[in-house]
Amino acid sequence: MSRAISVSREFGSGGRELGKRLADALGYDYYDREIVEALSSETGMNANYLENQLENGGMMGLPIHFAQTFARFPAVSEQTVQIMQMQTRLIKALAEKGNCVIVGRASDYILEKFRPFKLFVYADQASRIARCRARAPEGENLSDRELLREMKRIDRTRAEYHDIIAPYAWGDKSGYDLCVNTTGIEIKTIVPAVAEYYRLWAGIETA
Amino acid sequence: MSRAISVSREFGSGGRELGKRLADALGYDYYDREIVEALSSETGMNANYLENQLENGGMMGLPIHFAQTFARFPAVSEQTVQIMQMQTRLIKALAEKGNCVIVGRASDYILEKFRPFKLFVYADQASRIARCRARAPEGENLSDRELLREMKRIDRTRAEYHDIIAPYAWGDKSGYDLCVNTTGIEIKTIVPAVAEYYRLWAGIETA
Repeated sequence: MSRAISVSREFGSGGRELGKRLADALGYDYYDREIVEALSSETGMNANYLENQLENGGMMGLPIHFAQTFARFPAVSEQTVQIMQMQTRLIKALAEKGNCVIVGRASDYILEKFRPFKLFVYADQASRIARCRARAPEGENLSDRELLREMKRIDRTRAEYHDIIAPYAWGDKSGYDLCVNTTGIEIKTIVPAVAEYYRLWAGIETA
Repeated sequence: MSRAISVSREFGSGGRELGKRLADALGYDYYDREIVEALSSETGMNANYLENQLENGGMMGLPIHFAQTFARFPAVSEQTVQIMQMQTRLIKALAEKGNCVIVGRASDYILEKFRPFKLFVYADQASRIARCRARAPEGENLSDRELLREMKRIDRTRAEYHDIIAPYAWGDKSGYDLCVNTTGIEIKTIVPAVAEYYRLWAGIETA
């Protein structure tokens, strides 16, 4: 059976970069945007549209009064559910193909039968804002406040997507094998140690 | 300035062992029980009594109705506060002496001026119960249920001690640099990777 690493991350924490570099260090395949592109070929639907459906298509939670408590139940459109199902099947198929690192998309839970190494990447607000600014497209001129609002919105969407699929909460450390705080860290410096931790965790002999 | 690593841990997670092995791997001093023993020499009070005061001396939180919500406010005796203050001073003095690993006792926050590496060690319930059983004194015959209750009590005490001193919550990953899930892991296997992560994080050249 192939091995899998799932990388969950707060927006702006550098999780995607860490996942990519980890895949390179280990010689694993890396899937992120590639997943949406494969979905696009399969469905004939535009990749940006799909991404948008998955990120915004009814994922915003509604507070509903339930069993004497307030829980957030996301209202999800039928089309979004279908896209989610396709994405889930696709993630499993990619993991079947060979050792891989998959970023986000509830892959930590979707890949359970592969016993994936579950990594969560996070950072403090100032550090995440700085990372977003460093990689922002030229001409983007959000204030800190707007950027923060956008970061929170994206993380909320990720959490909601995750928590529809998985029985444990996005970002709750008990669901992950290792949680890495990237505040003030240059991602590439820590890659060898995270790769080493993974190898030891997985019982992979090192050269 | 000397370097410090603080290890916070759930009871039964193997955090103490990880801390000790990390200190050995790095050639750092290691302080855990040593702190209470030093307090004992300083005060002339029995070490077990001190430990008990710090663990149980009014640390049990009382639910108090406050500002339209329920918050837990620990009721702490004056003597306990004095012992806490002495322990805080002692932890700082130990860190001044040289590079060290300190387990628990809110050392993550107490040592802030040393910019300590903050490690949190946790594991799932089954794994923590198994670890407790493996190291239990001969003749101890707690049921799983009793053991679990005791584990929870100790962790609650640790959290309350921490949260009196530190402005962030014990066990909340945002307060730590690295959170390690030791479920199903033999502690000694991961030590080299955690030590390496720490070195990279701290910018220490490796040989």
